[in-house]
Amino acid sequence: MKFIIFLKINIVVFIMSGCTNNQTSFDAKEIIALETQALELWNSGNPDGFLQLSANDVIYIDPFFERKLEGIGQLKDYYNSIRGQVNVDKYEIIQPTVQFGLDIAVLTYHLLSQSGENVYKWNCTEVYRLNSHRQWQIIHTHWSFIQPNQ
Amino acid sequence: MKFIIFLKINIVVFIMSGCTNNQTSFDAKEIIALETQALELWNSGNPDGFLQLSANDVIYIDPFFERKLEGIGQLKDYYNSIRGQVNVDKYEIIQPTVQFGLDIAVLTYHLLSQSGENVYKWNCTEVYRLNSHRQWQIIHTHWSFIQPNQ
Repeated sequence: MKFIIFLKINIVVFIMSGCTNNQTSFDAKEIIALETQALELWNSGNPDGFLQLSANDVIYIDPFFERKLEGIGQLKDYYNSIRGQVNVDKYEIIQPTVQFGLDIAVLTYHLLSQSGENVYKWNCTEVYRLNSHRQWQIIHTHWSFIQPNQ
Repeated sequence: MKFIIFLKINIVVFIMSGCTNNQTSFDAKEIIALETQALELWNSGNPDGFLQLSANDVIYIDPFFERKLEGIGQLKDYYNSIRGQVNVDKYEIIQPTVQFGLDIAVLTYHLLSQSGENVYKWNCTEVYRLNSHRQWQIIHTHWSFIQPNQ
C-alpha cells in the first residue's frame, strides 16, 4: 500500500513539474543568450551557431526566398552557400520578447545590422522547442525587413 | 487497493493523453481552418476574426511598423484603424505547414492576395497556443513580403 501511495505521489510530482505550465520556470535570458551567441558567429560569416541550434524539422523564411525552406537539409545547403559572406561590423538587438508554452519559446526582436555604411533593419521571429534532452532547438525562423515607408 | 490502482491508471491515462508530446493528437487541419476563417473575414475588411482569435499577450509584426505591437490593446487599435479598408478579391494559401509543441502550433504559409490588378505576395507565421479552455489562440503574428529580387 505504501509503495503504491509513493508511486502516486511521484506521478503527481511529475505532473506538477513536467506538465503544468512552465512559464515561470523558463528563463527568457537563456533564449536570448542562445540567439545572441549564434548571431555573433553569423555576423562574422559563420552559420554553424544557427545550424547547431536548428532542429531537423526546422522551417526557415527570409525575404529573398519565394518559398520557405523545410528541414535541416535545405537550411544547411543555404547557410553553407553563403558561409563567409556575411560581415557585420555592429549590431543591436532591440526589444526582445519571449513568450513561453509548455515546451516552446517564441523569441521576437528587431535587429539593426551595420556593414560599413549600410544599416539593415530586420524583424525576427525564432521559435525554440525543447528536445527530449531538454535542450532548446530552433524549429522556426522568420526574417523580414522593417520597411515602414512601403 | 483496487481504488488506488484505478486512480493510478487514471493518472497514467491523463499523462498519456494530456502531457506527452501531443504531435499525433493535434490536427493541422484545425489550425488551418481557424486561420482560413479569420482570413476570409479579413479579406472583406473585417478584422474581428483575428481579434477574437488573438490572446491578450499577442505580439504582432508586419513590414509597415518600425516596432512590433505588444498586447491585444495595441492590436485592436491597429485593426480598428484599418477596419473596412481591406478588400481582397481572390486569395491563395500556399504550402501551409503546422509544427506542434505540447500546447503550441506554429503555422507557416505563403499568401497570394489579389485586389483588382494588384497581387501581393506574403509570408506568414502564426503561433497558436492552447488556452486553459483548450481553445487555440494566436500569441504571435509575423507578416512579411516575399521579395526575392531585392
